[in-house]
Amino acid sequence: MRGRSKVLKFRWDVVVIGGGPAGYTAAIRARQRGFNVLLVEKDELGGTCLNRGCIPSKALIHCAKVWQTVKNAGQFGVIAPEAHFDWSEMQRWANRVVSNLRRGLQSLLKHHGVTVEKGEAKIHGVNEVIVSSDDGEKVHTAKAVILAMGSSPAQIPCEPGASVLTEEQALFLPSLPKSIVVIGGGASGVELAWLFNALGVKVTLVEMLPQILPMMDAEVAEGLGQSFEKQGIDVQTSTKVNFVSARQGKTVVHTETVKIEADLVICAIGRKANSDGLSQLGINLNLDGSVAVNEWQQTTIPTVFAVGDLVHGSGTAHEGMMEGEWAVEAIARQFSGKPLPPAPKKLFIPVCTYTEPQALSVGLTEKEAKEKGLNVEIARFPWRANGAAMASALTEGFVKVIADAETKRVIGLHILGADAVNLNGEAALIVESEMTVDQAANIVRQHPSLSEGIKEALWALAGLPLHITKRPNRGRE
Amino acid sequence: MRGRSKVLKFRWDVVVIGGGPAGYTAAIRARQRGFNVLLVEKDELGGTCLNRGCIPSKALIHCAKVWQTVKNAGQFGVIAPEAHFDWSEMQRWANRVVSNLRRGLQSLLKHHGVTVEKGEAKIHGVNEVIVSSDDGEKVHTAKAVILAMGSSPAQIPCEPGASVLTEEQALFLPSLPKSIVVIGGGASGVELAWLFNALGVKVTLVEMLPQILPMMDAEVAEGLGQSFEKQGIDVQTSTKVNFVSARQGKTVVHTETVKIEADLVICAIGRKANSDGLSQLGINLNLDGSVAVNEWQQTTIPTVFAVGDLVHGSGTAHEGMMEGEWAVEAIARQFSGKPLPPAPKKLFIPVCTYTEPQALSVGLTEKEAKEKGLNVEIARFPWRANGAAMASALTEGFVKVIADAETKRVIGLHILGADAVNLNGEAALIVESEMTVDQAANIVRQHPSLSEGIKEALWALAGLPLHITKRPNRGRE
Repeated sequence: MRGRSKVLKFRWDVVVIGGGPAGYTAAIRARQRGFNVLLVEKDELGGTCLNRGCIPSKALIHCAKVWQTVKNAGQFGVIAPEAHFDWSEMQRWANRVVSNLRRGLQSLLKHHGVTVEKGEAKIHGVNEVIVSSDDGEKVHTAKAVILAMGSSPAQIPCEPGASVLTEEQALFLPSLPKSIVVIGGGASGVELAWLFNALGVKVTLVEMLPQILPMMDAEVAEGLGQSFEKQGIDVQTSTKVNFVSARQGKTVVHTETVKIEADLVICAIGRKANSDGLSQLGINLNLDGSVAVNEWQQTTIPTVFAVGDLVHGSGTAHEGMMEGEWAVEAIARQFSGKPLPPAPKKLFIPVCTYTEPQALSVGLTEKEAKEKGLNVEIARFPWRANGAAMASALTEGFVKVIADAETKRVIGLHILGADAVNLNGEAALIVESEMTVDQAANIVRQHPSLSEGIKEALWALAGLPLHITKRPNRGRE
Repeated sequence: MRGRSKVLKFRWDVVVIGGGPAGYTAAIRARQRGFNVLLVEKDELGGTCLNRGCIPSKALIHCAKVWQTVKNAGQFGVIAPEAHFDWSEMQRWANRVVSNLRRGLQSLLKHHGVTVEKGEAKIHGVNEVIVSSDDGEKVHTAKAVILAMGSSPAQIPCEPGASVLTEEQALFLPSLPKSIVVIGGGASGVELAWLFNALGVKVTLVEMLPQILPMMDAEVAEGLGQSFEKQGIDVQTSTKVNFVSARQGKTVVHTETVKIEADLVICAIGRKANSDGLSQLGINLNLDGSVAVNEWQQTTIPTVFAVGDLVHGSGTAHEGMMEGEWAVEAIARQFSGKPLPPAPKKLFIPVCTYTEPQALSVGLTEKEAKEKGLNVEIARFPWRANGAAMASALTEGFVKVIADAETKRVIGLHILGADAVNLNGEAALIVESEMTVDQAANIVRQHPSLSEGIKEALWALAGLPLHITKRPNRGRE
């Protein structure tokens, strides 16, 4: 394998364990650096995100949005009197999307020259990986190893006979129950609550903390909660679940104050890193079981790196992909004998939910900014004053922009609204580039478009609102 | 009116003629500078854009997209067997959007303290505006006048009895004909062609130039044309129309080579500035009838400014709004006796079509870049490799990124795809900020989202494609 193999004492330059977004990104990037790369995956390529997470949930959410469009088509002059939906057909669509993407990933890895091996890999010693499969055991040697084994859904204590599914299993429900309790108001929890409610299931969403979406700006989270209530979801915040029991064919969620009965419970309380056995090898773990790494994703064994959910438990796919790139950068330096620079530039990670309305947070929330002691200026722009949103009757929500009062730089952009997710790149560019409010506002946006909502919020912050008369809710800060 | 009125020899600081986007933006900005402002509008507030252009067309296009969603809902598990649509209900929706926005604009102007007068305004002498209405004539004096009278659809020669509507009238058709010829493949023409084809009308689109959407990148225009053909629209480029005649209840379009018969012809060949009578006052016009202005929108009369379609005939609303801001900036300098700086920074104006797929161009097209003698690097990313596009089955089209080979700066971003319009802010930020390919690519985007398409095209240009194996169509440049 290439000329260099003659001088190598190891079979591979890099072995990557785990074929999810963080792992496959690392594998492709390592090939693009000219390394020979083995990727080991015990299950399907694509990891949680592609097989049991972001992708099938987005495909199902799309189906539910089509259903809502059909139900509400009347105001747009479209009449669909006999309309109904078929959950198993929706699942078929999601399966098709997943298998197409999986096939694509397979041929992508092949084209990039990544060798893929199916089997359960265990790191064994500093430069050795043992892969067990139906064909027996195989030992691979590598100059560097990237661990990308991901995470698994955390479980809640429950009695035998209770119908409790993980956030992953919920996507493959054979039929829709009448009622569901979703435990956990993070991104997965709110998306599942929205999905099943949109399909006519009676949904209760229970969150331990005072706010759903604790990682998002409080106003966006609160706005989504209010919208959920309007849509018929029972949202219970500050409600801790102790355990789940079974009673006469029903499942009962026991909180500290009440009991909630339902046909089915979905547990979406977070995820745990798949780090079993790593500490015995001298790889330090954090208290929550995730792998401890430095700024370059390096573990306590210098030639072993860790990326993705294995490092942060409940991270996003795009954060894992970025970490995959960093790990490869670090490995390339290591191979060429160069020391690592202090740290890569810390990038802002957009956080979204694909609910209706959608939620987006980039940069600091108002609370985070204030905790940092920053003097902030805030403005909002409601979608009901935006022509593009009005033309499609999707006027719920707002854009909220947070700037540093001294530097006038935009430090946070938070959106609740119909198509907020597709504005994530624009929001990230503004915050990441440390643009001032004026710089970001002056860019010309298409009229009418949702991008104008960001422009208008920035204008409002600059004291020059155009399509609103004042900063809405200005009294609140 | 304010303390300053005592020392003023003119009744108004600023009179704005015309209440479209360029005019009302100028009026509000002038108020925000502390000027007293009269806005004169002879018809409805909001101009062409709000009353007979962008807004009603986007509302109708939304209705047609709902209809298409209902028709194609089957693959997503939603069955609507008896679905049909009602064109007059669609128009009712568009009317509702328009009147809501108009009411909003009215109260906006009131809140900002802009005095609005209904009537036909004529500039008369350097500082005098005469307004004629049912109440007779009124003379207003002003320190500065902003002309924002907009444009009107250009007409094609046609015989009596031929059914020919302008692009504006087409939005208010009482019933749908069986067949339509749309003359003119600019933004309005392609949108009308898409709209009526989506509603089952047999549509022929005729464009004089070799490419529809001549202001857009050729590949995007060509891609949209191919998609139109697949959708059943007959696209005829390089076809010049000589005149339109009537024959036995049908209307006939006579091109240089063929005759095309249809129930109705829509003329969307461009617009003419509403500049009648201005040259007699000493205001210079360009050859096409638009008002000649300097970089600050100043006409040949130094206290008279012109903005919007009056200046560029067939401009966009957002360009007009930007010009409104510039004119006010210039007037503020003039009032305070300061000279005008050489020119405001020339900003990139996004251009979009709200068809399916949508088209977006920001910055230089490939042709423009080459005409400037730039050495360019180009990469593309097809939506069929994007998870968000796949989850919603909207995989037509691509992102095309053009960079300067020397500086590595992004100089053009062109997108054909389902939700391209909402990416306009992200595209404009990249091009306007003169970001390098690496800088723009490194920003973290949400996975899965359409923003990733831009990131992937940038990565491909940097030689680091992740979800594609090579630069697609690389052989073409």
